[in-house]
Amino acid sequence: MATGTPQPAFVLVRPQMGENIGAAARAMWNFGLDRMRLVAPRDGWPNPRAVAMSSGAGRLLDEAQLAEDLPGALSDCTYVMATTARSRDLTKTIFTPEQAMIEARDRIARGEKVAVLFGPERAGLENDDISRANAIISVPVNPQFASLNLGQCVLLCAYEWQRAVGNAPAIQEELAGTDWANGEEIEHLAKHYEDRMEEAGFFFPEHKVASMKLNLRNMWSRMPLTRADVQMLHGMMRQIVRWKERDK
Amino acid sequence: MATGTPQPAFVLVRPQMGENIGAAARAMWNFGLDRMRLVAPRDGWPNPRAVAMSSGAGRLLDEAQLAEDLPGALSDCTYVMATTARSRDLTKTIFTPEQAMIEARDRIARGEKVAVLFGPERAGLENDDISRANAIISVPVNPQFASLNLGQCVLLCAYEWQRAVGNAPAIQEELAGTDWANGEEIEHLAKHYEDRMEEAGFFFPEHKVASMKLNLRNMWSRMPLTRADVQMLHGMMRQIVRWKERDK
Repeated sequence: MATGTPQPAFVLVRPQMGENIGAAARAMWNFGLDRMRLVAPRDGWPNPRAVAMSSGAGRLLDEAQLAEDLPGALSDCTYVMATTARSRDLTKTIFTPEQAMIEARDRIARGEKVAVLFGPERAGLENDDISRANAIISVPVNPQFASLNLGQCVLLCAYEWQRAVGNAPAIQEELAGTDWANGEEIEHLAKHYEDRMEEAGFFFPEHKVASMKLNLRNMWSRMPLTRADVQMLHGMMRQIVRWKERDK
Repeated sequence: MATGTPQPAFVLVRPQMGENIGAAARAMWNFGLDRMRLVAPRDGWPNPRAVAMSSGAGRLLDEAQLAEDLPGALSDCTYVMATTARSRDLTKTIFTPEQAMIEARDRIARGEKVAVLFGPERAGLENDDISRANAIISVPVNPQFASLNLGQCVLLCAYEWQRAVGNAPAIQEELAGTDWANGEEIEHLAKHYEDRMEEAGFFFPEHKVASMKLNLRNMWSRMPLTRADVQMLHGMMRQIVRWKERDK
């Protein structure tokens, strides 16, 4: 069962290798897309090589809509974008994948049906296909090396779809079962170290004592310390003192 | 010869399949990155399967820095980010690829040396590797289907690097050797069609004439017409008139 999430259909136009159809299904499902359409796949349909490659995303292949030609695949679509690497002699808006997926998101939110076209591996979409699209998607690759394969192109568009719908998380801090140390804990740690280092005769010569203490104190607050870190640092210093006492 | 562009090093840690090393090289060079480092590749180095897969990006393999262990690969780096899918029991900042490459760009601009780590295909980076990183990069994949391969992970990070350094173009209009029609040209076209349709008896019944003309006029301005479109539309109408005259 397809997810109910409104989303663009990804249309593979005359794909050649079953493996690439399977890889495209995986790339889509990696980013929560599950509406695939296929136009005249070269080796017929269903294709066991596609199934073998799609492991985990096979449902997309089972549910893929098959069409004999591109107009048949697009009959219900109100806005169509065609991925192509080459500049075409057709007047058309050219989007990056990011711009395209924002456009798709906004149109889908207004109730439109959006499709994204991906061409056959060897030659890409033909001008006849592209003339049926409202806009072009061009991945801004290195001009010295523009060789994205079908699966990579699908991956980048699916990735940008997910970014466009805002599922990407804010910068996170993984805290591994602890919490950040608070000011009191840092203060206590700083005092512990300063006291021991004072006893150890670390603060010397006299005219440098103030700046040495300031630098040490500053270091504790500069470091992003967790409670676990603070406990470990206390434990280390206590152990050093025990070790010193033992060797007296 | 490596490009002089300041950039992060992409470090493949204990990669297994030569094909994936080659695919990673291609993904990097697609987005202008050419500093690859390799830590203990399973099948030795150089690897002919990597070369075969890298077509067009083989230079990255020739120039890749080889290290026996991770500390050896990171000796000159001041900031290290580790890609991993799984949550680890290590306290660490977690970036999306976008956030990570913005961080990398900013640090590199301040003269830092940044590395991005990619783990072996089967199991990914070990905690021992990750403990050597300053932060984690986690691609926000579909929680129901989190299966990015090495090449795809490299591709998304390289893609985000290019986005971060701002090489992505603004929305473009491909104009195919023509230009947008100006207001005078649109006005002239609108008048041409209105006059002919008037002659043809299109505007009927009387109480609807005004709104029909308004809708027709509005359509011309709603469409993004080029000079070539306008000429073609004039030509079509002239031809229809000729056809009508011929059949009289």
